Amino acid sequence: MIIFVVNCGSSSIKYQLLNMNGEQVLAKGLIERIGMEGSVLKHTPTGKYTVDISAEIPDHSVGIQMALDALTNEEYGVIDSMDEIDAVGHRVVHGGERFTDSVLISDDVLNGIEACAEIAPLHNPPNLYGIKACMRLMYNTPQVAVFDTAFHQTMPKVAYLYGLPYEMYVKYGLRRYGFHGTSHKYVAQQAAEMMGEHMSDLRFITCHLGNGASIAAIKYGKSIDTSMGYTPLEGLVMGTRSGEIDPAIIPFLMEKENMNAQQIDDYLNRRSGILGISGLSSDFRDLESAANRGDERSQLAIDIFAYKVKKYIGGYVAAMGGVDAIIFTAGLGENSPFMRDKICNGLEYLGTRIDPELNKLRGKQMEISIKRARVKIFVIPTNEELVIARDTLNICRRIIKL
Amino acid sequence: MIIFVVNCGSSSIKYQLLNMNGEQVLAKGLIERIGMEGSVLKHTPTGKYTVDISAEIPDHSVGIQMALDALTNEEYGVIDSMDEIDAVGHRVVHGGERFTDSVLISDDVLNGIEACAEIAPLHNPPNLYGIKACMRLMYNTPQVAVFDTAFHQTMPKVAYLYGLPYEMYVKYGLRRYGFHGTSHKYVAQQAAEMMGEHMSDLRFITCHLGNGASIAAIKYGKSIDTSMGYTPLEGLVMGTRSGEIDPAIIPFLMEKENMNAQQIDDYLNRRSGILGISGLSSDFRDLESAANRGDERSQLAIDIFAYKVKKYIGGYVAAMGGVDAIIFTAGLGENSPFMRDKICNGLEYLGTRIDPELNKLRGKQMEISIKRARVKIFVIPTNEELVIARDTLNICRRIIKL
Repeated sequence: MIIFVVNCGSSSIKYQLLNMNGEQVLAKGLIERIGMEGSVLKHTPTGKYTVDISAEIPDHSVGIQMALDALTNEEYGVIDSMDEIDAVGHRVVHGGERFTDSVLISDDVLNGIEACAEIAPLHNPPNLYGIKACMRLMYNTPQVAVFDTAFHQTMPKVAYLYGLPYEMYVKYGLRRYGFHGTSHKYVAQQAAEMMGEHMSDLRFITCHLGNGASIAAIKYGKSIDTSMGYTPLEGLVMGTRSGEIDPAIIPFLMEKENMNAQQIDDYLNRRSGILGISGLSSDFRDLESAANRGDERSQLAIDIFAYKVKKYIGGYVAAMGGVDAIIFTAGLGENSPFMRDKICNGLEYLGTRIDPELNKLRGKQMEISIKRARVKIFVIPTNEELVIARDTLNICRRIIKL
Repeated sequence: MIIFVVNCGSSSIKYQLLNMNGEQVLAKGLIERIGMEGSVLKHTPTGKYTVDISAEIPDHSVGIQMALDALTNEEYGVIDSMDEIDAVGHRVVHGGERFTDSVLISDDVLNGIEACAEIAPLHNPPNLYGIKACMRLMYNTPQVAVFDTAFHQTMPKVAYLYGLPYEMYVKYGLRRYGFHGTSHKYVAQQAAEMMGEHMSDLRFITCHLGNGASIAAIKYGKSIDTSMGYTPLEGLVMGTRSGEIDPAIIPFLMEKENMNAQQIDDYLNRRSGILGISGLSSDFRDLESAANRGDERSQLAIDIFAYKVKKYIGGYVAAMGGVDAIIFTAGLGENSPFMRDKICNGLEYLGTRIDPELNKLRGKQMEISIKRARVKIFVIPTNEELVIARDTLNICRRIIKL
């Protein structure tokens, strides 16, 4: 079974083509600058060179068509025809309370995703463009939606309700949803496998630390809490996002700096975080270099980030009454021994300790705690595309059985 | 040495007169509804009945005069003349970054407190009315300011800086300050005394749980983190305050509900919290009764509160790399065995356990963990007035020595 995985951003499309016999990636690609000058598709058949195709890509529909053309190209394609694609799996950011799991896309589902766009105005519309383009181009192929929020729908009310008048939850669905769900789920599954146990017997804290960052408490197989909230702005300090702040700061800043609602939203999402603290960059690699050269504010941004992650870990251990493993994933989590060490330093009271030698490795799936640690620490490269492909496969199998 | 302790709110004055030989309270009182109809002074000489005096009290100056009249009254007074008062200690809410400790009030200090009113527009102005009234009425008596923020001024930058552009810290002093400092300090000192050790050798988590609620991490005698922030709105869900929420919710609500900066501030400070969740009351006693009658939203408000406290405890243990004792204080912390049990349930991994029999007690200074617990749990009734009096005494002694 061959599955096409599509992840549409506002001006980008990421895709992979997987053969699910052996979960083998046949090709992957990235389209950038959709609707802008200089748009380009980078297509990589597995084991071969990347092909760069520059072209005018005015919208997502043209982008999807180009990706399919590349996949079936005589020279650098990996399949003979689009008909070989058995199913398409789409990443969808927000599934609200309606979508608690991945789902076969129908007209009704499409309306549901559109309804969630109210809560995720930046994310859901491009996801919808991608879905509609694929439905048009491959109208006989099953399309599946995999939601970033779905895995967190098991959170109990104590974790997802805010200290706001209850009516706001009823009226606008104002609650914690959480994001990066496919990533948190995937790395937890992998960790359980590495431990030779079932997820349903284990308590995990999964740290998805990239430019966007979130942490989840996964108790006996279910997400019971996570740091992102109604939107991805809440929780940790991130590349350009503030994370949690005193709510009173927002009306204060709006008045003092004469910002409207749209401007403060932009300010907190795009100009804050470690970029704002350091005044230098939203990329931790830049900050590490600058800190090594003695830049104080870069050091401060790094320290603040690590401190927040550490506190979240402690908080989620309390929420679960204990923990069996802590897992690091995503760009920073997978590739920064320095940050992992900084975060775990002081968590020895939990019964864990990083092995400094093992921690030197980057981007590999591995255990990095010392041998006899009661609480294990893992690095597990995330693979959201694989989770999307697996979910798509499972749903298609269910349909066939029906 | 006799010290008059004054705590002015926007429409109230709380006062105590203490003889510092033996730290004995001679009398205490409460003036309410200043500037409103039905204003009243309730004066209680220690060991005697409370006297209710109704009178027109247009401002804090008249209120202070009435308190002094009551203290020197022939019938229910406790001193013969105002001259017996050796010093006055004032509670001041916000000391910004300037005031890291209690201080003798000079013109310069007065200006400093006025400057902090920008950050605490609701709290510092009434504190200033009280100070000015006392300076007018007792112009030869030393006046001392004791700040709610001062104890937390030992926090490191990683704990007090937000994920905002650094310029905002420089320009507006936008950072975490923390409040309830005198209370956190007092209960930590008491706990160290009960343990027969020095605060400088111990790591405490102090939970000040009243209608306003905050938690502090006190490591080796210093506050290193606390849940309230730039204002008292941040952190835990409280009686009517939201505590932390996704910052993106604020511009969202302002647009959808057509609120301006002042209105959203009011909404989050006065209409949210457990009042907003339950739709019933901001008082946990009401919620406990309602929950016992089966009211789901009251139960939910209680559960959310306890869950947040539990997570903060876990987070601060991580911040300190361990903990020696957890302390409960203020209205709810001192008087609700039910809530204390709910919070501590699941923290056994830290090496602590509540003794259900000991936990039945209310409002008494006591240890409530089981005997061999590695991490102790205390209930310690707070006494902010005593801290203010002690600080005032110490400062006056220093002046005399000079």
